[in-house]
Amino acid sequence: MTEMQLISALWLVGVLTEAITGALAAGRRRMDLFGVVMVGCATAIGGGTVRDVLLGSYPLIWVEHVEFLVAIAATSLLTVAFAPIMRYLTKLFLTLDAIGLTVFSVIGAQKALTLGFNPLIAVVAGVVTGVFGGIIRDLFCQQIPLVFRKELYAVVSIITAGLYVLLTLANLAPWLVLALCLPFGFGLRLLAIKFNWSMPTFDYQEQSVH
Amino acid sequence: MTEMQLISALWLVGVLTEAITGALAAGRRRMDLFGVVMVGCATAIGGGTVRDVLLGSYPLIWVEHVEFLVAIAATSLLTVAFAPIMRYLTKLFLTLDAIGLTVFSVIGAQKALTLGFNPLIAVVAGVVTGVFGGIIRDLFCQQIPLVFRKELYAVVSIITAGLYVLLTLANLAPWLVLALCLPFGFGLRLLAIKFNWSMPTFDYQEQSVH
Amino acid sequence: MTEMQLISALWLVGVLTEAITGALAAGRRRMDLFGVVMVGCATAIGGGTVRDVLLGSYPLIWVEHVEFLVAIAATSLLTVAFAPIMRYLTKLFLTLDAIGLTVFSVIGAQKALTLGFNPLIAVVAGVVTGVFGGIIRDLFCQQIPLVFRKELYAVVSIITAGLYVLLTLANLAPWLVLALCLPFGFGLRLLAIKFNWSMPTFDYQEQSVH
Repeated sequence: MTEMQLISALWLVGVLTEAITGALAAGRRRMDLFGVVMVGCATAIGGGTVRDVLLGSYPLIWVEHVEFLVAIAATSLLTVAFAPIMRYLTKLFLTLDAIGLTVFSVIGAQKALTLGFNPLIAVVAGVVTGVFGGIIRDLFCQQIPLVFRKELYAVVSIITAGLYVLLTLANLAPWLVLALCLPFGFGLRLLAIKFNWSMPTFDYQEQSVH
Repeated sequence: MTEMQLISALWLVGVLTEAITGALAAGRRRMDLFGVVMVGCATAIGGGTVRDVLLGSYPLIWVEHVEFLVAIAATSLLTVAFAPIMRYLTKLFLTLDAIGLTVFSVIGAQKALTLGFNPLIAVVAGVVTGVFGGIIRDLFCQQIPLVFRKELYAVVSIITAGLYVLLTLANLAPWLVLALCLPFGFGLRLLAIKFNWSMPTFDYQEQSVH
Repeated sequence: MTEMQLISALWLVGVLTEAITGALAAGRRRMDLFGVVMVGCATAIGGGTVRDVLLGSYPLIWVEHVEFLVAIAATSLLTVAFAPIMRYLTKLFLTLDAIGLTVFSVIGAQKALTLGFNPLIAVVAGVVTGVFGGIIRDLFCQQIPLVFRKELYAVVSIITAGLYVLLTLANLAPWLVLALCLPFGFGLRLLAIKFNWSMPTFDYQEQSVH
């Protein structure tokens, strides 16, 4: 298995995991099956879509490879059927989601570098890929995006994408960069969950200025 | 009247109807006239805009034909003036909205096929055109998109766009495809309203997994 | 100082002001530092980004000039440090925000005209640049966009962008157009604040038609 095959496989794991979290979020809002599919798809491919629209990189991946969209929609629907067992799988999902977050961050940064963008934009592209699916899911479900408030999640994406860009610019072999970044990002996220690490919060309740 | 003229006329009916539903939604939230125009425009052209941004198809229709944007903004404002009679027109609006939904679905699918996209993407393009205006309207008005929860609406769009793509791929004459798809979609939507057909709902209130 | 340098300097003032209002809005929702940076950035560059995505004009400004993005993110974070003094600066911020609104409206219209779009689309581009950052900020913070409801804000943007387009089409020298539009828009906004001018509101609480 080449490193491209590995990262593609991990990407698919991440995408389908996000579809499941999106479908469950739709279920919490008592949506119908169309809502389930829409929120599942938006959560799974929203990050990559926003990244490519911002970079002007067409065609979008799911437009070119519609088989992924079919798999994501099917996974969203299957989530409804398997909902009763989902609550026993919380730890599994947190683990799969950590894989997704790490791989999305790496893929986003990789794509921007390949397209010739500035290294800092590559980090931004990684973070957008990692977190925007969840942001769109939360907007569709009418809640303030979790990623703006919860434990160390976006920061894992920033650090992972940053490390990927640095090591790539340092001319390390691609397989070595992946071998360092993927376990690092994944481990950091698991540690953040285990020890409940979080970012400082900004609490500003004065008179509005605007 | 050619079939392109017919579909353009029906498209305009649909777009102006959506502008009215957007303006009324703004009024329910007590927005000012700018909010009325913005929500009216976003409801009317949001679907086609999201579709073209996702497909990377520029220029957008309303950017190229600004006269439509002017008509939509004017219709939104006129809705305010005619608001007192709107509540007597509920059935009329549901009928006009059913025309819009059907035509949008067909037009979106048609455009994607013309641009050479995969047939499944053409169905997605039809559905995005049909439902995204309403999704943006609901996000602007801070409510969970109706189309994710209410009676058979998006499904009418899926079936209509799917039928259009199938019949077109089967090489039927364009006028015949329209003569079959438009009454079918329109009738299906009216039946869904009359008999209160709806999609199954997914109600997931367990412990959060994410 | 050329007029391009002047308008770039005023643009930077506006962008950094919007970053501060975004960061404070995030603080009102008790977001963490990532949320502060995201909402700050979206408020500052959201308008120009939506405009360029709608016009299909790539690369986006902050993608090409990543130094602005760094400055905006840094300003968002500094806002947290200086939050205790922010409430004494309300008037200063309203003034800086009025500069931003005026300059964004002019720059948006200017860009669309330069790209060869229709004059009406140039006005739309000016308004989108002026108000969409705040709309995205409010969506992220789960409130109905203020600009759809509050005092004369978007209308200042419409009038300023319209005046800019008219004077430019009338072939006035670019410096003269700016010398007329910028003080006019800025003054109009300050008057609107001082005298509490507002748009009529549309209050529609009948039975839903949709």
